[in-house]
Amino acid sequence: MTGTTANVVRLPERVEVLNIGLPMFAEAVRAQGGQVLHVDWRPPADGDRELVRALEVLHADPAVDRANAEVVRRLDVGVPSLVTVAPAAEVVPRLPERTLLHCGPAIGWDRVCDPLRRSMRAATVAEGWAADVGEADRLLARGDVALQPANEHDTVVPMASAIGPSSPMLVVENPGDGGAPRRAFAPLNQGPGETAWFGRDTEAAVERLRLLRDVCGPAVAAILDRAGPLDVLALAAQGVAMGDDLHMRTQAATNLVTRTWLPHIAVLPDELRAPFARYLGGNHLFYLTLAMAAAKALTLWAAEVPGSTIVTSMARNGTTFGIRTSGTDTWYVTDAPPVGDALYYAGYGPDDAAPDIGDSAVLELVGLGGPAAGNSPSVAAFLGGSMADAAAATEGFRRICAGTSSRFQLPAMGFSGSPIGVDLRLVVETGITPKVTTGILHGHSGEGQVGAGVATAPQACFAEALRALAAGRRRDR
Amino acid sequence: MTGTTANVVRLPERVEVLNIGLPMFAEAVRAQGGQVLHVDWRPPADGDRELVRALEVLHADPAVDRANAEVVRRLDVGVPSLVTVAPAAEVVPRLPERTLLHCGPAIGWDRVCDPLRRSMRAATVAEGWAADVGEADRLLARGDVALQPANEHDTVVPMASAIGPSSPMLVVENPGDGGAPRRAFAPLNQGPGETAWFGRDTEAAVERLRLLRDVCGPAVAAILDRAGPLDVLALAAQGVAMGDDLHMRTQAATNLVTRTWLPHIAVLPDELRAPFARYLGGNHLFYLTLAMAAAKALTLWAAEVPGSTIVTSMARNGTTFGIRTSGTDTWYVTDAPPVGDALYYAGYGPDDAAPDIGDSAVLELVGLGGPAAGNSPSVAAFLGGSMADAAAATEGFRRICAGTSSRFQLPAMGFSGSPIGVDLRLVVETGITPKVTTGILHGHSGEGQVGAGVATAPQACFAEALRALAAGRRRDR
Repeated sequence: MTGTTANVVRLPERVEVLNIGLPMFAEAVRAQGGQVLHVDWRPPADGDRELVRALEVLHADPAVDRANAEVVRRLDVGVPSLVTVAPAAEVVPRLPERTLLHCGPAIGWDRVCDPLRRSMRAATVAEGWAADVGEADRLLARGDVALQPANEHDTVVPMASAIGPSSPMLVVENPGDGGAPRRAFAPLNQGPGETAWFGRDTEAAVERLRLLRDVCGPAVAAILDRAGPLDVLALAAQGVAMGDDLHMRTQAATNLVTRTWLPHIAVLPDELRAPFARYLGGNHLFYLTLAMAAAKALTLWAAEVPGSTIVTSMARNGTTFGIRTSGTDTWYVTDAPPVGDALYYAGYGPDDAAPDIGDSAVLELVGLGGPAAGNSPSVAAFLGGSMADAAAATEGFRRICAGTSSRFQLPAMGFSGSPIGVDLRLVVETGITPKVTTGILHGHSGEGQVGAGVATAPQACFAEALRALAAGRRRDR
Repeated sequence: MTGTTANVVRLPERVEVLNIGLPMFAEAVRAQGGQVLHVDWRPPADGDRELVRALEVLHADPAVDRANAEVVRRLDVGVPSLVTVAPAAEVVPRLPERTLLHCGPAIGWDRVCDPLRRSMRAATVAEGWAADVGEADRLLARGDVALQPANEHDTVVPMASAIGPSSPMLVVENPGDGGAPRRAFAPLNQGPGETAWFGRDTEAAVERLRLLRDVCGPAVAAILDRAGPLDVLALAAQGVAMGDDLHMRTQAATNLVTRTWLPHIAVLPDELRAPFARYLGGNHLFYLTLAMAAAKALTLWAAEVPGSTIVTSMARNGTTFGIRTSGTDTWYVTDAPPVGDALYYAGYGPDDAAPDIGDSAVLELVGLGGPAAGNSPSVAAFLGGSMADAAAATEGFRRICAGTSSRFQLPAMGFSGSPIGVDLRLVVETGITPKVTTGILHGHSGEGQVGAGVATAPQACFAEALRALAAGRRRDR
């Protein structure tokens, strides 16, 4: 084209904007019809100087990356097998007499939340230490029954669980790279309805604990004697492909193990067979504690690696929320968060809800629960309804995780692996904490489950753990 | 901008092309770096003038649209329940003595394909009409055992099935809008392995037929007596949400019914319980014939509507492929197609494969199989591997279907309903025929299943049916 042009200053007719940080600027350009690419960015650690320095220390150290890679490898390649079921007193290590193991960090009776108190009372009665829940309450209040965190005994328990020495425990073994296998434990799932793990202390809830002890535990032990060990996470991976997140939804994996065990259930002794079949056939949550025990067996092995920034314990007791990182015994504890993004049963709402509770958040550390939400239509219902909402939960974990599962593949996300290995550094840097899919218990009435939703882990304990790790590194040098 | 320009003819620097029809023009533009939007279009009915006139007749007639809407409604809202299991002789209507019911359109022994012949021999031995398969072959060859298409007896049978009067049949009832329920039938699934429906005539295959008759049929009948009727498609819909297409993959629905029936299995009499549990626990295909019987109960009700262009029968016998539309008794039959998009077991290939076989294509008429592929990671493996490939199969059905299921929702496709009601007019107009997800049998060795894949229904019978329908409409006026 030919032509001449005078020295005229021309304003651009077309504006393209790259906006970083606060979204309000992007919105203003968009409102005026301009093209804008918004980058969701915040200053690392919200600009907290001490945390930024801690991040610098931990990022600069190649030993941390090496340790993290090993932790991620262990979380990914461990093969935990369910080998038997036995009373806690016979298998759980370091278990003192007349002790209940409870969910979450250590806590004294005076601070125990209402649903967990009820569960403790029900367990105290089921153990025969008290004739009724009134007597149980008095025993517990005066310290005649000891309380210890299940996590300190290689054990994880869901929701408001408190378990006594007669509780039948799933025994899961992870051979690791050889040597003695890492053994982890979880109770048989109590099932839906009027049950102690939902914070109920009725006669039916106590009766369910006796059924587990007298029928369900011996039944699963007999099945495993015949069927042999169960590769817990192989079946879980099939369940994930069928839409389970294995935390809020465990239907597919429960049905897979039901089918797998069916020929062995059919030849159980008469006194076990029918009641166990009623229990299992009516319990779509059965696989939850299998997955939890397997996750604990992975994290136990991973936690042996020193000097990593990967979280290997995450647990709540309805009062406090705590984490540990690999290679340390120190818990970093803060207040338990509320459960948000919640759907409540009719007639209930946020005012009725107890705070986030249970050891099941161990699942979120190994690629299940929130990290697997992206393929779960059922979980999507709690996250906005669309599969894109569910995918966003998985993507959130990708931003704070150091690795990807080769075991749990998500068809709806291009068959990509779910994220594994929550890295303290990434959590503090991005301000994104793990989102945990979970049930909601009534906070004071003893009515049990009143809904389900998503709990966002509190930032404070991650920051505290990061500071402590960085201080430790500085001392080492 | 200012400037002057001489009268120069300028070639455009930027070309945007909209290409309709043959893709080669679009490719040529693209090869030269041009922008092109390609619209995949073909002349209706490939430009066949007689077919175009037939389409005009059937499109112009509002009675056809009304009939089609009613057919789609019936396919969508019918609620078929499994009510009992009983020997074919006791429940299947119009069943003459010494007769085998076989898959697909009517066929004489001389044209029966090898796998179906083997299945017929196995059934003849299992019925006690012959001492061994050699004698069975002679009886069949001289017409001493009659052959009738299962579809003519409100029955559908999968793959190379041939069933005798002692076969235990699933009895499914669809109450429709009231009056006598529509009853449809399908055999209990024989399971994977050395079985007659896969075209095997070994002693093990015969023994499996006896096990079904003596153990599995009575067991399911006893379970239903206690458990009550089973809403077959409610469970199927849950299975679809968990990645079943209910044709090639039936794992989730099978596990759901296993779990549902577990308490009743546990109290079966000793002589039934253990062998039935082994059969069911080892049979991920169990739900296939339940879904087929339910689909048949829907299409029987739909087929009562006169003057529709919706396909209500689609069946193959390994030699011929046939369809019927609602309101008529006439089959339109052509050669059975090969199974394409196939994955073969190691050591097998297309030369070993029998053509497409079985009545299971009834599933594709009610929103299962191909129409539900878009949410099935397992089926995706046969269609290219990605969920987008699977979605394309569902989209293909959308282009030839008159409606959408409100029952079968596909989470991976935005929770949209699967397409239902294959409309002859749309098939002929677009040239797209139903794609049927199916197993592949060995064509002559008697080795049974050698792979699985997708069969594309042949165009010819759809065109023939359309011509006949249009001719009928012209005569009516």
